[in-house]
Amino acid sequence: MQKIKIGIIGATGYTGLELARILSGHPGVSIEIITSESYTGKKFSEIHPSLRGIVDDTLQSIKDLNKTPVDVVFLALPHGVSMNFVKEHGYDKYKVIDLSGDFRLPDAKVYKQWYGKDHVIPEAIQDAVFGLPELFGEEIKNAHLIANPGCYPTSCILPMAPLVKNNLIDANSLVFDSKSGVTGAGAKAKETTHFPNTNDNFKAYGLFSHRHTPEIQNVISTFSNAAANVLFTPHLLPLDRGILTTAYAVPTTAKSREEYKDCLATFYKNKPFVQVVDTPPAIKEVRGSNFCKLFVDFDERTNRVVTVSVIDNLVKGAAGQAVQNMNLACGLDESTGLMTPPLAP
Amino acid sequence: MQKIKIGIIGATGYTGLELARILSGHPGVSIEIITSESYTGKKFSEIHPSLRGIVDDTLQSIKDLNKTPVDVVFLALPHGVSMNFVKEHGYDKYKVIDLSGDFRLPDAKVYKQWYGKDHVIPEAIQDAVFGLPELFGEEIKNAHLIANPGCYPTSCILPMAPLVKNNLIDANSLVFDSKSGVTGAGAKAKETTHFPNTNDNFKAYGLFSHRHTPEIQNVISTFSNAAANVLFTPHLLPLDRGILTTAYAVPTTAKSREEYKDCLATFYKNKPFVQVVDTPPAIKEVRGSNFCKLFVDFDERTNRVVTVSVIDNLVKGAAGQAVQNMNLACGLDESTGLMTPPLAP
Amino acid sequence: MQKIKIGIIGATGYTGLELARILSGHPGVSIEIITSESYTGKKFSEIHPSLRGIVDDTLQSIKDLNKTPVDVVFLALPHGVSMNFVKEHGYDKYKVIDLSGDFRLPDAKVYKQWYGKDHVIPEAIQDAVFGLPELFGEEIKNAHLIANPGCYPTSCILPMAPLVKNNLIDANSLVFDSKSGVTGAGAKAKETTHFPNTNDNFKAYGLFSHRHTPEIQNVISTFSNAAANVLFTPHLLPLDRGILTTAYAVPTTAKSREEYKDCLATFYKNKPFVQVVDTPPAIKEVRGSNFCKLFVDFDERTNRVVTVSVIDNLVKGAAGQAVQNMNLACGLDESTGLMTPPLAP
Amino acid sequence: MQKIKIGIIGATGYTGLELARILSGHPGVSIEIITSESYTGKKFSEIHPSLRGIVDDTLQSIKDLNKTPVDVVFLALPHGVSMNFVKEHGYDKYKVIDLSGDFRLPDAKVYKQWYGKDHVIPEAIQDAVFGLPELFGEEIKNAHLIANPGCYPTSCILPMAPLVKNNLIDANSLVFDSKSGVTGAGAKAKETTHFPNTNDNFKAYGLFSHRHTPEIQNVISTFSNAAANVLFTPHLLPLDRGILTTAYAVPTTAKSREEYKDCLATFYKNKPFVQVVDTPPAIKEVRGSNFCKLFVDFDERTNRVVTVSVIDNLVKGAAGQAVQNMNLACGLDESTGLMTPPLAP
Repeated sequence: MQKIKIGIIGATGYTGLELARILSGHPGVSIEIITSESYTGKKFSEIHPSLRGIVDDTLQSIKDLNKTPVDVVFLALPHGVSMNFVKEHGYDKYKVIDLSGDFRLPDAKVYKQWYGKDHVIPEAIQDAVFGLPELFGEEIKNAHLIANPGCYPTSCILPMAPLVKNNLIDANSLVFDSKSGVTGAGAKAKETTHFPNTNDNFKAYGLFSHRHTPEIQNVISTFSNAAANVLFTPHLLPLDRGILTTAYAVPTTAKSREEYKDCLATFYKNKPFVQVVDTPPAIKEVRGSNFCKLFVDFDERTNRVVTVSVIDNLVKGAAGQAVQNMNLACGLDESTGLMTPPLAP
Repeated sequence: MQKIKIGIIGATGYTGLELARILSGHPGVSIEIITSESYTGKKFSEIHPSLRGIVDDTLQSIKDLNKTPVDVVFLALPHGVSMNFVKEHGYDKYKVIDLSGDFRLPDAKVYKQWYGKDHVIPEAIQDAVFGLPELFGEEIKNAHLIANPGCYPTSCILPMAPLVKNNLIDANSLVFDSKSGVTGAGAKAKETTHFPNTNDNFKAYGLFSHRHTPEIQNVISTFSNAAANVLFTPHLLPLDRGILTTAYAVPTTAKSREEYKDCLATFYKNKPFVQVVDTPPAIKEVRGSNFCKLFVDFDERTNRVVTVSVIDNLVKGAAGQAVQNMNLACGLDESTGLMTPPLAP
Repeated sequence: MQKIKIGIIGATGYTGLELARILSGHPGVSIEIITSESYTGKKFSEIHPSLRGIVDDTLQSIKDLNKTPVDVVFLALPHGVSMNFVKEHGYDKYKVIDLSGDFRLPDAKVYKQWYGKDHVIPEAIQDAVFGLPELFGEEIKNAHLIANPGCYPTSCILPMAPLVKNNLIDANSLVFDSKSGVTGAGAKAKETTHFPNTNDNFKAYGLFSHRHTPEIQNVISTFSNAAANVLFTPHLLPLDRGILTTAYAVPTTAKSREEYKDCLATFYKNKPFVQVVDTPPAIKEVRGSNFCKLFVDFDERTNRVVTVSVIDNLVKGAAGQAVQNMNLACGLDESTGLMTPPLAP
Repeated sequence: MQKIKIGIIGATGYTGLELARILSGHPGVSIEIITSESYTGKKFSEIHPSLRGIVDDTLQSIKDLNKTPVDVVFLALPHGVSMNFVKEHGYDKYKVIDLSGDFRLPDAKVYKQWYGKDHVIPEAIQDAVFGLPELFGEEIKNAHLIANPGCYPTSCILPMAPLVKNNLIDANSLVFDSKSGVTGAGAKAKETTHFPNTNDNFKAYGLFSHRHTPEIQNVISTFSNAAANVLFTPHLLPLDRGILTTAYAVPTTAKSREEYKDCLATFYKNKPFVQVVDTPPAIKEVRGSNFCKLFVDFDERTNRVVTVSVIDNLVKGAAGQAVQNMNLACGLDESTGLMTPPLAP
């Protein structure tokens, strides 16, 4: 079988690293080009020594992409930079999977509201498919531009979208209390990610203003019969990888854990990466893997539904999900190259 | 001035260690006896090498207490054991400050419901004062039996009780999402606290069933005009000390951050250990200290009030608060011996 | 091609877990039986939820091994228990790869001296091959009983054995200062591995008395022209996986970094898992992988050779190396199923 | 008694923070001025929120020092900047305690060799006293310029200087394998201290070239009868505070642990901050305190002496030791304001 030809645009961040790590073991692809404007000419493994002997490709410039035949391009670029790439290169010569936030929101107006800048190619937003395969698998198969979801939204939407869709909860009552590892803040050293500021520490940040809020809200509203306002609070955990989201909702009619669990179990029946489990899952159970574990419970005393979900923010929350999208968009089995077990402990 | 004579009953756990650490620097007390049934005859600092040269007292048996004149006894015992001590020794010869859960709930019936056993001295529950000095300072001054609050309840009640009292929020809408360090689980090695099970990991536990729930609910109901049902979800953080609680409520009339902040600032105006701050506080800002930092905000979009509070679970959540209670009960200034700054980073 | 039939004896520890994790992705094997006497009848993934959906085999008893045709048996048992298994079952029906310390030392006398007990099958010690493939690959190919090396010895021997063999250093001057993650202490909760005793902490232990000492010394002496006494100091790092060993030696004739580096580079030229690198490697660069990175330098001022080596103690230090040994002993390419990249960050 | 008037020059780093934390509880001092050129006009506690309510002084400029009468000035400045301060301000108007490396080495030549720049006030080097109170207490009492030792040197010199002085070990055989927490790298975010690069990680750095090497070597040589070359290898631990140094030496005549232990115990008999202990100490036993714990052992098999020492790098390794020096230089008891117990766990 012919291998799918891959380009990775942006090599120095964590999503670039993870794409390389995952794709290096994928049986159906060949990495044709990895770009970095700041490290052009260096080996990938000089920047990321953990992949020494595995991904030793020389980093090229984005300009070299035109000379390189590729089938799929992953954009591991900051938001704002991605949309410029799409504006310049389009998404007809190859499929584009964008890991930034540039094409995840419903329109340019909402984009401006949360990202504070004008979108440079608003018409592409309509073409973009939100790349959450368990919810939009069919659309992804035919997509040419895929907006890979944010890490937090993946962890928030997966447990709650089926409950909203089946009218088991009041979408407007949703509160997402999310806790993320530090890699979610990127590979660049900042004051907030300085080890002594993070180790043995824990804090909330971005209250009411985090850019993943409209992303969650948009998908939840899609599955609801009316626009929903959801509350999202991110926190920074003293660990590398992983997001755990505890979500709270007021139930509608159903009044037992079984009804909620059945709803999730049915919805995710044939989905290889979503596991509905019977005890609250821990972050480390999915570390390094593309799995998402979901737990749901109902409390009669306070009349609340609570879900707990865990993912690895760099895998199911970013690069793994991007490869899952690529598999679907290229006609491969969804799980090809992605069944690596979690690394625990 | 004559020193207050202290007994510490139970030396091997973290609360015993913290009581010794704090009281060793307290100018108004003298530790007369520290007991441990399992290590009788050993030096305290053999069990806790961090206090070598500081607390080298020989551990005695509880039986030696009768021969030792003391003014205040701290019970650093497991729940169930504390109430037996109180049954046997009473609380008239000396003031008793109990750090277990045995005297925190409103009555023996609720105790049995959440702790699964009969209370051995139900009449003492009525005499016990809930030792949260910022809320019950006057009662504490005259108390003979003080039920030192749980660590989680301290972090949940302090931000929300004033808002409930002033009718600014609907008490029945309260959701407490709490995250605690591992010392909250005690000094004894368990599977859940085995380093590789906790490091780089994060999980929820005790959903709907944690014993601190009725403690929170009882105090919140006291400040509310009606019985309130509150939802409490504890999580285990990969760090040693500290609790951060993110709490969510539906507002009643007030619709601005200022109104909520003013309510808290007024309530805690002359309280030396509660600081109302303008950015969400981090756990490490209070580590090793008796301080509690509170943050409150109002989100117009979702119509929610959110508070973030941090304490050190072993200090303001246990031993420090116990010493604060002792100060009040013995006529000292509330903050005597407790102004040690946090250790950060 | 026919799959190699595998038995894993001992499922509950970290080496059992890692064997299952690695072998689940190995293209040339089929796991026929996994045993656990304490959890017989339960699913493997109930004990190790990270492998849910990947290794869901029902745990059997060791007694079921006789009914199960296998080609290779991995013993993931404590020392003392392994030798009893070998005494009872032998190593002629299938190849045995033992991950305990029972067959690593030169004879029963040394075993008794360091392990404090009589060896139950001393004659098997002579048959056992020390399973360090980069040093004893040829012997391993024909071995029926393989003593998989200890984690510390792997990290100590790989950098220094080539230098000793080539007479570049004085073997008697060797000092190994090793630092290990907590998984090296096993899956069972102990006081020393209680999270608050380990987190943000660091200590030396087992000075002069650690059982890996004679293992290191025996192999170093084999490569030296005379018996060598080596000093080994283990330390406990506040992290899960990985060993870093800093080793010190007095040089003989060579007086430049290049000579030492060339020696290592030549020795490990065609070895897929050993990388000789130009800057001191970090533990995370090999986490989750079977790689070992080696660095060597020479200090003219103090006339010393220093090496720094890193491995993942559970992979190259245990289960990965065991699978590498299996590959060799079964005629497969050494690296089959083992090229999973490290998980970093 | 009149309070000693203090100036802290340099507020934003960890040593500035620790000086403020420690001095805020010191009964014999009053902080007259804290300076920061980058944050002039802000409150100290805005930069360091852990000291909110404790040190709320407004930060001033260095220029304001001339208008402020002080008895002692602490320089919490980077090396290179400190010597310029001393050149400009001298050390006759007030005593100067410098926490940088500018006055620790024997002369300007060695300074240039290791720090790569010319010393601007070489004559002051001769006036400076090396501020290790347990070794140079008498000189410190009369000093006007005190070079506060580096954190690593404190942990290396304390265990080995007495053994060298008493000719129990060969000074030229000394190898110091040191492991430090991340605060040793300063408060500024860097790539090496980015949380995901440090957490769950461990590495050696600065081999043969770390600037603390000549500082250790100089003091060891002072206590030896001949110039000694010592080998020093620093490593970066995934924790905030603390240094553990494992040191190796070849013994001369003494051949028992007792002889070595007696030597240390006698040497440090009346020193309040040095404890000679019987089991290898852990970093957390001294966290947040000015204590140093020392362990020594002798191995007959390999003929080596090994010491293990632990300190908090920010306290006994920096700010605490500086206050100890101030106490001595101002005629106070050495331990005034410094007996705060360690914070463990």
